[in-house]
Amino acid sequence: MPSPKIHHVGIAVQSIDDALSLYDDALGVSPTLRTEVPSEGVIVAMLPVGDSRIELLEATGADSPITRFLARRGPGLHHIAVQVENLEASVERLRAAGRRLVADEIRLGADGYRYVFVHPASAGGVLLELIQEP
Amino acid sequence: MPSPKIHHVGIAVQSIDDALSLYDDALGVSPTLRTEVPSEGVIVAMLPVGDSRIELLEATGADSPITRFLARRGPGLHHIAVQVENLEASVERLRAAGRRLVADEIRLGADGYRYVFVHPASAGGVLLELIQEP
Repeated sequence: MPSPKIHHVGIAVQSIDDALSLYDDALGVSPTLRTEVPSEGVIVAMLPVGDSRIELLEATGADSPITRFLARRGPGLHHIAVQVENLEASVERLRAAGRRLVADEIRLGADGYRYVFVHPASAGGVLLELIQEP
Repeated sequence: MPSPKIHHVGIAVQSIDDALSLYDDALGVSPTLRTEVPSEGVIVAMLPVGDSRIELLEATGADSPITRFLARRGPGLHHIAVQVENLEASVERLRAAGRRLVADEIRLGADGYRYVFVHPASAGGVLLELIQEP
């Protein structure tokens, strides 16, 4: 099996605009992409960090998962996304091991990548995204 | 400034042994290193993921920072470590921007890398480690 890699680390923020100065101060990085993902209730900003990204997540409304996350835990690390070579095979192994996914179906992102989330209850408290690029 | 990269993502676990099966199920990865870091009160296991690592952190005792983290938030994402080319310059920029570090001095790890942690209160709730390899 080819080695997976960290595709991005998702961070829940109150405000992308306010968060950007930290990553400029600490790392000298600026966003390459900023877009709304209505199906997930978020605005995302992608900061390139080597071969990976930091994904800043801002809620678009009161029913956004990010609004609920901020209310429960405050801003901070939200999820880790690992890129895999064969998403179906990974999902198959997880199901065979009795691990729970957040949604049953593999989802398709706007830019053509496909993804699932392993539920934190099945992943040691981690919201673990598995992602396969087009 | 050369591009930084994600060096590792730290995950607090109750038990490294119990956590390993998830990363085997989901990613097919196994630890390349397992060691105790007495100065940080942790046992760490490093799982290679592409050019980065997942660092599993288990507490060594009741006064470990990981024991306190688990009591407060439960297991899950703990910190993100970004490798930089010039740690002194990064620290200088952070201080100039009024951002607080967890410890004032740059620390030296057992394997020769040097690191600081930006305090979550100055980093949008994220425990952000900056690390420079030897």
